[in-house]
Amino acid sequence: MTHTPVLLTPGPLTTSARTRQAMMLDWGSWDREFNTLTANLCQQLLSIVNGHASHHCVPLQGSGTFAVEAAIGTLVPRDGKVLVLVNGAYGQRLARICQVLGRAFTTFETAEDQPTTAADVQRLIRADASITHVALIHCETSTGILNPLAQIAQVVADHGKRLIIDAMSSFGALPIDAAQVPFDALIAASGKCLEGVPGMGFVFTDKTALAGAEGNSPSLALDLHDQHAYMARTGQWRFTPPTHVVAALHEALLQYHEQGGLAARHQRYANNCKSLLDGMAAIGLRSFLPAAIQAPIIVTFHAPRDPRYQFADFYERVKAKGFILYPGKLTQVETFRVGCIGCVGPHEMRAAVRAVTDALREMEVLHI
Amino acid sequence: MTHTPVLLTPGPLTTSARTRQAMMLDWGSWDREFNTLTANLCQQLLSIVNGHASHHCVPLQGSGTFAVEAAIGTLVPRDGKVLVLVNGAYGQRLARICQVLGRAFTTFETAEDQPTTAADVQRLIRADASITHVALIHCETSTGILNPLAQIAQVVADHGKRLIIDAMSSFGALPIDAAQVPFDALIAASGKCLEGVPGMGFVFTDKTALAGAEGNSPSLALDLHDQHAYMARTGQWRFTPPTHVVAALHEALLQYHEQGGLAARHQRYANNCKSLLDGMAAIGLRSFLPAAIQAPIIVTFHAPRDPRYQFADFYERVKAKGFILYPGKLTQVETFRVGCIGCVGPHEMRAAVRAVTDALREMEVLHI
Ligand SMILES: Cc1ncc(COP(=O)(O)O)c(C=O)c1O
Ligand SMILES: Cc1ncc(COP(=O)(O)O)c(C=O)c1O
Repeated sequence: MTHTPVLLTPGPLTTSARTRQAMMLDWGSWDREFNTLTANLCQQLLSIVNGHASHHCVPLQGSGTFAVEAAIGTLVPRDGKVLVLVNGAYGQRLARICQVLGRAFTTFETAEDQPTTAADVQRLIRADASITHVALIHCETSTGILNPLAQIAQVVADHGKRLIIDAMSSFGALPIDAAQVPFDALIAASGKCLEGVPGMGFVFTDKTALAGAEGNSPSLALDLHDQHAYMARTGQWRFTPPTHVVAALHEALLQYHEQGGLAARHQRYANNCKSLLDGMAAIGLRSFLPAAIQAPIIVTFHAPRDPRYQFADFYERVKAKGFILYPGKLTQVETFRVGCIGCVGPHEMRAAVRAVTDALREMEVLHI
Repeated sequence: MTHTPVLLTPGPLTTSARTRQAMMLDWGSWDREFNTLTANLCQQLLSIVNGHASHHCVPLQGSGTFAVEAAIGTLVPRDGKVLVLVNGAYGQRLARICQVLGRAFTTFETAEDQPTTAADVQRLIRADASITHVALIHCETSTGILNPLAQIAQVVADHGKRLIIDAMSSFGALPIDAAQVPFDALIAASGKCLEGVPGMGFVFTDKTALAGAEGNSPSLALDLHDQHAYMARTGQWRFTPPTHVVAALHEALLQYHEQGGLAARHQRYANNCKSLLDGMAAIGLRSFLPAAIQAPIIVTFHAPRDPRYQFADFYERVKAKGFILYPGKLTQVETFRVGCIGCVGPHEMRAAVRAVTDALREMEVLHI
């Protein structure tokens, strides 16, 4: 096996050797053992969100966006209207999905360093009685900003509206309790904080909402009602599952629990984030977001002001030292991003800061 | 690593250890090396179909059905009409996709042991001027029947209509030459005759047809025009790719070429099929299809008539001997299926026949 650089990216990310090793078996997708694996996976996922009583876990082939589109298409009825809360690229994408699916929607946009507030949402819901659903990005990965999920969920429920949460980059690391936070759908994927490999998403759907969603979906492949009904009846995925991805996620979840579950995962990522922020601050690299709204998932840094800094060059030099960074996703400000998630710890974060330091020195970037 | 049974199923199937080993690396989806891997993969796929001049290869996350739906949704304009040729479950599914997407369609159904003929297609096209597209399942995996692609493609082209081919279970094993066989879309997936792991599909799209398809798709995730345009511009997948699945398919393709490409793959599967048919015939198990229309992909066998035969029991016994079979998919006749594809050869096929023989003897199934 060739040497693999450490991925400091928000998925795909660095997985454990044990997780990858789980892909060394071929599974029959019709076989009872594979059905058991899938059922067990869904049960483990439901446990993380404390959703056994209230929600189904519906796994779906494809990337996270496929699961987001599936949730909108299945759970928002054709005459529904979605209020999409936007402060970054994934909020924009969710609005685009509503548009392409022909679901009525309206957006509320705040600056990329500005969380949506529950007060905003209350005002917006009150001003437009036609809104049926609110869609929120929990951690907006384009910056790493955390939106106040619990407060927004409360306001949405108080007004009898339904909440759809894109928790792609937060699920498994930041606590979300389905018994406390009311939602119709919460969407995440295999290759994020659970540290599986990419290739499938999953949606926790409110049982009643899903039961009433038959025939909503404008797609066969992305119909979560159909996917769930088939799986409930047969124990199998409706269409060929990504068997190796499923097996890897199952193995990743075993490790997740062995390591102490959500609390431990959250702590490790928080430590990674602190170690990264401290190390980068020591060499003058400033974080884009204030600490209070920074999720311990991915950090956006201002690019150095020095004209000798070029992201492409910087990226290659840091990569040569063993770390893959992530480009910025802001249009106004030049930035780059470093992920805190994946099978990495303080050792890797310190080494990454050293690699960044050395790369900038080699580039003679002085003015940071 | 635990012992893994041989999968005699039409995908997921048995992969080589080398293919699985390619999943032991984590790839950054934004990284140049991964972009190169993807580009190389698409080039290799285009070579197999001799489509460099005429077609794009558009990879897509998800199972094969996702790629079929994407092809219909992207390439059939909203005012198009599809003639769907049906002689099994996958033809039915394609019709269902048209229905869910709201594309006008009509079906022509023949019995499950009856290939569609070019004469049928000619008659149907002549009788309905509103037909714009014809959709055909090349090898209908629900029985293993082969439809006469070349002849049908000619008739479709002669009448100025566009052809969409679901070649999921035949691509890579049965010859299809884009320079000879005109088509707008040909759909296949990673986990079939190329012997990769499941998790992605790909669609060869006629370049002109794809260029004219902007805005057709009723889905964001399944929009092949958008997927292609983004990849052409950036070298990257639009949404997180199933990196390990891509790497496995790339490695599987290297082996495909090393082993002699399509001709060799076809020959190996034909030998597997013959060895299976001969062996099963020797113990009295009759194949559902006549040899002339049997593709060397998967064989449907009539279940033994003996009342002591139960598929579930038979399946478990054969599995205990190391082989995973596949249930039948016919509604009228009791059958079971055995795949000829995957990283298996005459040794495995002979051993599978022995396992079947022993299982039936243990079950005291005498009347076959
Ligand atoms: C918050 C959020 N939503 C949606 C997505 C889209 O997921 P994918 O790239 O797997 O389609 C991501 C991916 O990083 C994300 O972070
Ligand atoms: C001919 C054909 N079409 C479509 C499919 C659907 O593919 P998937 O199960 O990957 O969605 C298959 C799967 O075996 C197939 O054989």
